[in-house]
Amino acid sequence: MASNTYSVTGMSCGHCVGAVQGELGQLPGVTDVEVNLELGQVTVRSAEQLDVSAVRAAIEEAGYELAG
Amino acid sequence: MASNTYSVTGMSCGHCVGAVQGELGQLPGVTDVEVNLELGQVTVRSAEQLDVSAVRAAIEEAGYELAG
Repeated sequence: MASNTYSVTGMSCGHCVGAVQGELGQLPGVTDVEVNLELGQVTVRSAEQLDVSAVRAAIEEAGYELAG
Repeated sequence: MASNTYSVTGMSCGHCVGAVQGELGQLPGVTDVEVNLELGQVTVRSAEQLDVSAVRAAIEEAGYELAG
């Protein structure tokens, strides 16, 4: 299992949380996506370590940006 | 034709705009719903004057509040 926390900019409401969870949840091996809206942080748990480029692409597909 | 502008609190992003437009657009006679996210204002155009209680109910159904 892997767990990584990312900073994501632009999320402002529960709809944003759902959009990010929906996209990240479609990545292979992802078992859980937690979003802390106040901190702008997304924690992804997955069977194997995810490629950050896949995480970035999913976040951008949802309409947000991976910080840094 | 009637056109009324309402102050709505809690809208923060494009998803919120879509949710409010979707609910208000279902009211009978509504022809257009414009949302100004920065001002928190929603303008509804309709064939007949709408009952404010119907507008309030639609906004609440979307998850927001009619101010005042």
